[in-house]
Order: sequence, then structure tokens, then C-alpha cells
Amino acid sequence: MPDLQDLTRKLNTNNGSKIVLLVADGLGGLPLTPDGLTELETAKTPNLDALAKRGTLGLSTPVLPGITPGSGPGHLGLFGYDPLEYQIGRGVLEALGIDFELGPNDVAIRGNFCTIDANGNISDRRAGRLSSDIAKKLCEKLHAGIKIPGVEVFVQHVKEYRLVIVLRAEGLGGEIEDTDPQKTGVPPLDPVAKNPGSQRTAELLKEFIKQAAVILKDDAPANLLTMRGIDKKPPIPTFEEVYGMKAGAIAVYPMYRGLARLVSMNVLDAGQTLSDQMDRLEQSWKDFDFFFVHFKYTDSTGEDGNFAEKVKRIEELDAAIPRITALKPDVLIVTGDHSTPSKMKSHSWHPVPVLLSAEERCRPDLCDKFGERDCLRGGLGQFPAKYLMGFAMAHAGRLDKFGA
Amino acid sequence: MPDLQDLTRKLNTNNGSKIVLLVADGLGGLPLTPDGLTELETAKTPNLDALAKRGTLGLSTPVLPGITPGSGPGHLGLFGYDPLEYQIGRGVLEALGIDFELGPNDVAIRGNFCTIDANGNISDRRAGRLSSDIAKKLCEKLHAGIKIPGVEVFVQHVKEYRLVIVLRAEGLGGEIEDTDPQKTGVPPLDPVAKNPGSQRTAELLKEFIKQAAVILKDDAPANLLTMRGIDKKPPIPTFEEVYGMKAGAIAVYPMYRGLARLVSMNVLDAGQTLSDQMDRLEQSWKDFDFFFVHFKYTDSTGEDGNFAEKVKRIEELDAAIPRITALKPDVLIVTGDHSTPSKMKSHSWHPVPVLLSAEERCRPDLCDKFGERDCLRGGLGQFPAKYLMGFAMAHAGRLDKFGA
Repeated sequence: MPDLQDLTRKLNTNNGSKIVLLVADGLGGLPLTPDGLTELETAKTPNLDALAKRGTLGLSTPVLPGITPGSGPGHLGLFGYDPLEYQIGRGVLEALGIDFELGPNDVAIRGNFCTIDANGNISDRRAGRLSSDIAKKLCEKLHAGIKIPGVEVFVQHVKEYRLVIVLRAEGLGGEIEDTDPQKTGVPPLDPVAKNPGSQRTAELLKEFIKQAAVILKDDAPANLLTMRGIDKKPPIPTFEEVYGMKAGAIAVYPMYRGLARLVSMNVLDAGQTLSDQMDRLEQSWKDFDFFFVHFKYTDSTGEDGNFAEKVKRIEELDAAIPRITALKPDVLIVTGDHSTPSKMKSHSWHPVPVLLSAEERCRPDLCDKFGERDCLRGGLGQFPAKYLMGFAMAHAGRLDKFGA
Repeated sequence: MPDLQDLTRKLNTNNGSKIVLLVADGLGGLPLTPDGLTELETAKTPNLDALAKRGTLGLSTPVLPGITPGSGPGHLGLFGYDPLEYQIGRGVLEALGIDFELGPNDVAIRGNFCTIDANGNISDRRAGRLSSDIAKKLCEKLHAGIKIPGVEVFVQHVKEYRLVIVLRAEGLGGEIEDTDPQKTGVPPLDPVAKNPGSQRTAELLKEFIKQAAVILKDDAPANLLTMRGIDKKPPIPTFEEVYGMKAGAIAVYPMYRGLARLVSMNVLDAGQTLSDQMDRLEQSWKDFDFFFVHFKYTDSTGEDGNFAEKVKRIEELDAAIPRITALKPDVLIVTGDHSTPSKMKSHSWHPVPVLLSAEERCRPDLCDKFGERDCLRGGLGQFPAKYLMGFAMAHAGRLDKFGA
């Protein structure tokens, strides 16, 4: 059965219109008390409210009802890729998260430095309170020291005891069991292939670990490492092939640049602040049809449980809206990749507020404010996030008729 | 593509929370006049309304839009099993409905006593106004009399001319055509296998009918029987395996105990009244994570076309709510398996009111009353019933994040 992407691939047409997808990470929230308002309902958002009045609202479900998504599934859904069809391994996400440009021949691995005792058993699965400074140097030493014929090996530091390993060679399978035994007092597990096509990769990883043990032997507490989330980047159609639009991604945080890169968007230099991002948007306006702009702080303040600060960050975002509307995008969507209620200090499954503004083609829905309860009455209804791109393209006049 | 059960299987986590699913059979209704209220909207339900005010409402579609479900598909949907994927034969439902414990090697058959004339043709497909008393004795006679080597044979009475036959032996196929020709003046059809794997079963059923003809030869008008809905219980994952919860079922009527048994819930002694059921709930509170409590009379009064009585039964249910909330379930859901508008005197396709109450995690939706029109504006939206378990587990904090 054809899905929406099969249709957009066939029906897309280039009318020169421009679409901006502004993602306020973790936008959806909850009131602190049952009769209170959510963060978004509390925030003073005159610019978003004005858009809501002329536009159409709705609520999106990132994956399935009740399912709380991570950032990966959340963004894939917004980009129109079914997060259940395209599941991304942890090693791949970790590599994306440090801006590593993964290719189709790369096997990505999340590594953890650990401590091995005299008997070869793990005594600390995270190598004590290993500082990032030391860990970074050890990664450089591994990167320089490990030599496996016929294979390019990358070792890059992430944070504290965490690192990313990438093996690059043609024909490597990526399905290997974790070597982290998830407990101490036992040795790390051997890399075991889950299928014959990954057998060679398992052998290569064994050799990697053998050499790493020699290189790190005097570096206790970080005298070995374990491997998790071993995986390859799945084959995934490019954004441009599916929608016929050149896309530019303007994200400050590496993880979101990585997710944009996963669908082959052009990743632009976003600077450090929302203002830098708006500068970049203006400067690149002529170069792309579609812009993905990512704002992190609505999520991080929610994760911190800081209701007031999340409200402020939403207001900060609202203040940036005029710089976007001044560019006269044909469609501007403001939404999140999931909810992060500060009350829960975590991502949640609650549907995500969606605002779609398109001067000419929005059917009015009586909503005149951007908030969760308004969105519940919005014209887009409640819909799976993977269909958002259909709404975006339609309102931009970028989809031809289906069937005669 | 993974479905919700694939996700709950992987993501479920046991935080010790408790969920109560209170099913008021056939809950949804219709007004008697276009400007009137439904049964649920008419009923005085202060307890349900208080839950609605703090909780979240919605409407569920049991199977697909416009499809009126029987009790089987209705309940499977509520338990999170796609009723289109798990289709249960009539023989199996009939056996479940008399509390027969079907195993994986059992072929279940719905039997009808009939009258055969001197030429071997059916003269009455339901054996006249056969009383249950007589039919019951005939079933006992068949059960005792029929001997087929290598096969355990069960014959149990249901009601009037209806009975259940079960053949138990390893390796029996269950796909056999009905023997009821659906008209009189012709002989019963032979049991015909629909595939080679059911050939032996067809032979066994021929032998069963041959012996039954001898045993019943002097019992006119019930001097033979026809067979319908021949089927085995389909392989179906257990509720505990899918959700990681121990489930207790508290249902007065055998059909609903049977449906709970189908997904391997623990079927508890429910007594005869709603008050007995509440006693059982209190007594079993420590023993289970999930409780399915079934209330029949909202459906039977609807089937009778008795609007006023259905309203009273809803009020009776409302009065029991404080005994449930006193137990402090983390999630309490009140809903139906389908609608049974008394105006229609039958099940209907109309979406089913859903009330989900969870003190800490419900997003407010401005609804403060439990009724069909309120549910239409509820935060859960309109959703397939098979996703209800996702909402239940999420609000109970029993699902980990999907993807990083």
C-alpha cells in the first residue's frame, strides 16, 4: 500500500514556494495543578497567537498513542519518515550527536571506558569519575594507535566515559550484540554477530578490543572499553528525493544536525543563539525551499523541571517569529518533536501542539491562540506526526492532484 | 512494521502502579429524539463527572468506522488486540461463553439440534421448541455415548437447541465447512475440510454424526444435529507477555470471562452482582497489576430498548465508582466495548465514550462531564480502541521511552 511519501514523491511540484518548520523541542506540556495552564498556555505569545488566528492548529502523535519518543523518532516523524519503519540504533545516534558524518559503509558503536581488574573482570562499568579531558586524550591515543588492515577506524570522544567508534569498510554487517555485560565482576563479552553477514565485523571488533587493551593498559581506571548499540545507518530516502525540495537545517545542537543529515538535508552553520539562527535563515533564504530550524531550550528547561524558565524560552521563541514572517514564507509551521512537561521532567507521550500558518490556504478553525487546549479544537485535528509534511506541502501548493 | 503491542512488549516497565479497566458493556447510546440526550448524558453521574473533570475523555472506534462489533471484537480491541488480526470463530466464542476452558488442541463447534424426517431430510433446523431441560439431557447422553478412539469428546449444552462440541486431540486442523444447509427439505451436509490439514477432523466429525444419529434416533424432534462455526482458538499472545502486567478479570457473565481467558488473564470469582464484583476487586487488589471489570446491564437494557432502565444501570455503575477510587488506582478507565443505543435495540457502530483518569499525568481538556458530546471534545480524541492500552500504560508510567 503506498504511503504518504510514495505520493509526495510522485505528486510534488516546484512552485518556488518556501516552507519553514520551526521545531521547539519538547514544546508540549502539562499544568502544574489540575486546574492550571500548561507552559505554552501560560506564555505570552502575541506573535504565535496572531499566526494561530489566521492559521490552523492541531495536535500530532509522534509515534503511536501512549508512546514517548526520543529525539530520533520525534524528528523523523516531523520530517515525514515513519519512526517505526526507520529505527535508528544508539551507536548511529551517538555518532550523529557529535556531528560525525556517517556514510553507508560505516558501522557506528557507542563505547564506554571501563575499569578491568587483575583478573580481567570489570570493576567499574564507567571507569570512575573519568574527566572529559582525560577521556578525550585516550580517544586520540586509540584513534592514532589502532591499525586494522583494510578498515578505516575512527575513535571520537563524546562526554566523560562515553566515546564513539566507527569502522569504515565495504560490506560490513552491523548486527552485533553488545559487549557490555551490564554488571561488574565479570569480563566484557566478546562481540558476537547476530547474522553471518556481520561475522567479519565481529572479528574486526575483537581485534579492536585486543589492540585497545594494549594501548590502555597503563591508563586505569580507563584501561578498557565496552561496546553498545552497534549499528549501521539504515538506508533512508533523501528529503529532496521524497519532497522535491532543497532543505537547509539550522540547528545549534549536534544531535539535530545529525538527524537532519540522516535524511540528507544541507546542514548550515547555525552559530550559537536563536538570533544567530535567524541571521542564517535570512542569509540562506534564497538557497533553499525548506528550512528546518531547531530550538533546544523548550526541551532542556522541561527536562530540568523548570516551568517558569520553559515559559520564558517559549516567549523568547515567540519574539523571534517576526524575523521569520518578515521573509514571507508560504508556510510556517511551529511545533515540537514531542512533549516535555516540566511537571514530569522528561519527554512524554502527550500529543504535540502544531501551528500551521499559510496566508492563502488555511481553513479557519475559530482558534485564536496557540496552546494545547486550542490545538485540541484545531482544524488539523489529531494526526500522526508523519503526516505533517503532507499538510505542509499542500498548504504551500507543492502537491498535484492524486488521480484524475 | 512494528505495532503497538510490539512496542509495549519491549518498553513495558513495572513501577508497581495499578490500572482498572471498567467496561460498561454497550455504554454508548443515542437520544430518543434528535434534540434529546443519550442515556449516558441523561444519567446522573456525579462520580464519573468528577473523574471526567480531572481526567481526559475521548471516543474509541472498536474495529473500523461504521463497523458494529460483537462482544468478541469489542473486547479484544479494549485489551489491545487488533480485532481484524485476531478473528475468533463462533464455535470458540460459544465455548468461551459457557466457561469451557479451550486448549490449543481443541476444535470447537457450535451445534444445533434439528429434526430429520423419514427420508433423512431436515424438517426443522431448530428441533421445534425444544426445552433447555430436554436438550441438556440429550447433551449428557451424547457426551457419555460417543466414543472416538484417540480423541477426547466434549458435548455441553448452551441454551434451548444450542450446544457446544469440542474435539480434543493433537494435530487436528479446525477449518471445516458448516454442515447446516440453512434450509429444510434437504439432508445435513457432510463435514468437508477446507484444507488437507483439517481432513482428519472432517473424518472424526463424520464419525461423531454417525454415532449421534444412533444415540438420538428415538429423541425426535431432536433426532440429529448440525454443526456450525467450526474453529480452533487462534494463537494469541498472553496479556502478561505483551504488557508485563498480571491481570485479573472480574466478570459475572461467562462470555466475558471467556474473552479474558482468551488472552490468559486470571479469571476471578466475580459473584453475581456489581457489589460482589467490588468485593472481589478489593480482596484481590494486592494480587494483580491490571483489573478488567465487566458490567453487563448497560448492554442488555440497551438491547431491550429500555432507555430508562439503561439510564438507571449507568447510575448504578456510577454509584460503585467510589469503591474503586478508594483503592487509589493509578489509572482508572471507564468505557464500553461498543455502543448499544436503546433506540436501536442492538449493538451499533457509534464511537464509544472513554474516560481516563490518572491523578498526575492527564492533560486537561476542559471537559467536566462524562457524556458522548463531552467525549467528542476530549483530549484523547477519536482513536482506534486497540490503542487504549497505550494510553493506559503511559498514564500509569509503565512505558519507557522509544528510541534515543
